[in-house]
Amino acid sequence: MSNAPATPALKSWVASANAADCHFPIQNLPYGVFKPTPDADARVGAAIGDQILDLSVLEQAGLLRTPAPLFAAASLNAFMASGRDTWRSVRAQLGTLLQADTATLRDDAALRARALVPQASATMLLPVQIPGYTDFYSSKEHATNVGSLFRDPKNALLPNWTEIPIGYNGRASSIVVGGTPVRRPNGQVKLPNQERPVFSPCLKLDFELETGFFVGVPNGMAEPVACGEAESHIFGMVLLNDWSARDIQAWEYVPLGPFNAKGFATTISPWVVTMDALEPFRTAQPAQDPLPLPYLRHDGAHAFDIHLEVALRPQGAPQAATIARTNFKHMYWTMAQQLAHHTVSGCNTRVGDLMGSGTISGPDHGSYGSLLELTSNGKTPVDIGGATRAFIEDGDEVVMTGWCQGDGYRVGFGHCAGTVLPALPIAG
Amino acid sequence: MSNAPATPALKSWVASANAADCHFPIQNLPYGVFKPTPDADARVGAAIGDQILDLSVLEQAGLLRTPAPLFAAASLNAFMASGRDTWRSVRAQLGTLLQADTATLRDDAALRARALVPQASATMLLPVQIPGYTDFYSSKEHATNVGSLFRDPKNALLPNWTEIPIGYNGRASSIVVGGTPVRRPNGQVKLPNQERPVFSPCLKLDFELETGFFVGVPNGMAEPVACGEAESHIFGMVLLNDWSARDIQAWEYVPLGPFNAKGFATTISPWVVTMDALEPFRTAQPAQDPLPLPYLRHDGAHAFDIHLEVALRPQGAPQAATIARTNFKHMYWTMAQQLAHHTVSGCNTRVGDLMGSGTISGPDHGSYGSLLELTSNGKTPVDIGGATRAFIEDGDEVVMTGWCQGDGYRVGFGHCAGTVLPALPIAG
Repeated sequence: MSNAPATPALKSWVASANAADCHFPIQNLPYGVFKPTPDADARVGAAIGDQILDLSVLEQAGLLRTPAPLFAAASLNAFMASGRDTWRSVRAQLGTLLQADTATLRDDAALRARALVPQASATMLLPVQIPGYTDFYSSKEHATNVGSLFRDPKNALLPNWTEIPIGYNGRASSIVVGGTPVRRPNGQVKLPNQERPVFSPCLKLDFELETGFFVGVPNGMAEPVACGEAESHIFGMVLLNDWSARDIQAWEYVPLGPFNAKGFATTISPWVVTMDALEPFRTAQPAQDPLPLPYLRHDGAHAFDIHLEVALRPQGAPQAATIARTNFKHMYWTMAQQLAHHTVSGCNTRVGDLMGSGTISGPDHGSYGSLLELTSNGKTPVDIGGATRAFIEDGDEVVMTGWCQGDGYRVGFGHCAGTVLPALPIAG
Repeated sequence: MSNAPATPALKSWVASANAADCHFPIQNLPYGVFKPTPDADARVGAAIGDQILDLSVLEQAGLLRTPAPLFAAASLNAFMASGRDTWRSVRAQLGTLLQADTATLRDDAALRARALVPQASATMLLPVQIPGYTDFYSSKEHATNVGSLFRDPKNALLPNWTEIPIGYNGRASSIVVGGTPVRRPNGQVKLPNQERPVFSPCLKLDFELETGFFVGVPNGMAEPVACGEAESHIFGMVLLNDWSARDIQAWEYVPLGPFNAKGFATTISPWVVTMDALEPFRTAQPAQDPLPLPYLRHDGAHAFDIHLEVALRPQGAPQAATIARTNFKHMYWTMAQQLAHHTVSGCNTRVGDLMGSGTISGPDHGSYGSLLELTSNGKTPVDIGGATRAFIEDGDEVVMTGWCQGDGYRVGFGHCAGTVLPALPIAG
């Protein structure tokens, strides 16, 4: 990436960005939407160290060259719609402005005071206005584990799974930004010893550790995206928690898929990490057997080496206990294959469409991306240090994190967190 | 409905509106979005007879009292978001303006020439910017027929079907207005005598006769809509063709539901018929056994007596052959129950969300709402007058229509039509 500041030695004059474990070094520069103070207008920023660079201030000061004003906006959509050349131009300009030896902003105390906002004092908002949300199911380990638990262990993987990057339409309206509390859903639950379902608070509330990507370059109806071109349509990635009510899901999902079990909330991380920032961490996807149909083939490496963790913090606990560690590179189907499949029958996409990876589980028990798998559907609770969890309890905070490990630096996603509130009371 | 012009004797000075078989008499007044000429801006109109009343012209002329300008807009969303009192006030004002004995517009030739646009010369656009699309599966006859064909005739209806208004998230991006051609999808098809799927044009392209309703009054996350209140959230209804690729669907839909089989296109009729116009045609829904769980109960009549038809016109044929006649009143689950169920686990809705009924099949063979059912999955083709159809062929136009029969007048939906274009060529 000639225009991406990806060299390990690169440093910023924002000192906090240079720590080896910082998620937001100058090599990253993810985008988000924030309010510097609760009463301020929303605007677009880039994370650098423990600060946010307010791009609307830079734009107003004439320090960013773009085809049109893009950053005094409540979403990234206009920036995304401006196209890949603009994404790369802005990234290069920000990299230059933030480099240790660039004086423009570094030595302008007044402008710097307006343009840099401490992350600790800002309010992060949903970064993208999301017209459509699709969730895939692309981890072979996850699909095998779920098939074993919900259906038949001997035929856990269904015949279509190795042919199709299976996906379904999710509910876009209830996607929230990390930090938003999530209300435990009520719903229909079928108890094993009862003939009819009961209406009950979810008794098996779970997370699903996922990533998601945003479509930046849309396609029209009956204009499929070729697999080899698909990555150029992707703006960037986030962490995604696909909250799941396992008991509601088990009862409702045949034959049309999950609905109320997923529609109550989906949480994404506030910072969108661009594909240009992830480029140095490209790696080979797992071998695919059988070889996919031609429309799903692409040469070269299309996975990304993103270390992922899930931690759980009970109410009042001083810190979260890590309960799963895995990696995005284990995914059987790539993002390019997902987008090619999504569009191959003629479906159009729109700027800001979000595509979830599906739960990311690795080969080992400790690498499973859901409590369903980690606890074998509640049978073997996980240790969270002084307590155990079969499923999520009220007051628990679920915290996901993820990063790419460079040589002396990390390109990170920050956190994707949510605390579970008790269910609404059920009228007698 | 004290504010609804629903009395049979009511006549308009727009003469074409007074014909007994006209879909758009003064009792109806459905809303749509149109361009009077191809280069004009989109604006909101109401259908009256064979004309469109341009509400942006009335608004500009000071003839409509609303809290804010609503009609010089490319969608109904602002009008919908203005709330039920405004919906009813505008309906009452239009009813008065269009009554035979109201001179205001009738006798102002200059204004009338600007405000009335012949439907024949206007271009209809998608009436609503649709943030979310949900499709239900609420006809017991349809679910039974499909269960018999795709699964087990002896246990055709799954155990959850009589407890849950089963629904799933559809793809909002590919919803198009009636008249838009629809490209036959390519996709993965599993032929019975082959071990692996092939990539092929859909060989079993079908329609699904549905209605849809638009959410006008949204609910927030964790703020469920009570069943007894749900109808007050609904702005109006349209006809809906849920185009379905049966062969793609059969191979892809387990376990997460239909995806590419439905995502290539969904067609809705251009005119949104309001709940106030439909009110005189309220009737009892079928008895429900077992009695639904309390959150799905509502007293009184919640079905609507809407006669529905599907016709098919082969390329070049002078007229379409009607192949199915049914009625919306057969639906087992009501719109109120659908919306209550959709939101009961905490899912929020937004202004303009579209909820499809699911295929509307009646008890008799000729009342089935899809070719899948009418032809027993292609085994017994239907007669279309000089030809037969197992599934839809290239060049075929599918035309849906529907109306409520009043005493000497009809409250109609007009047409929901789409012509099928050949699939894109598949690269060798």
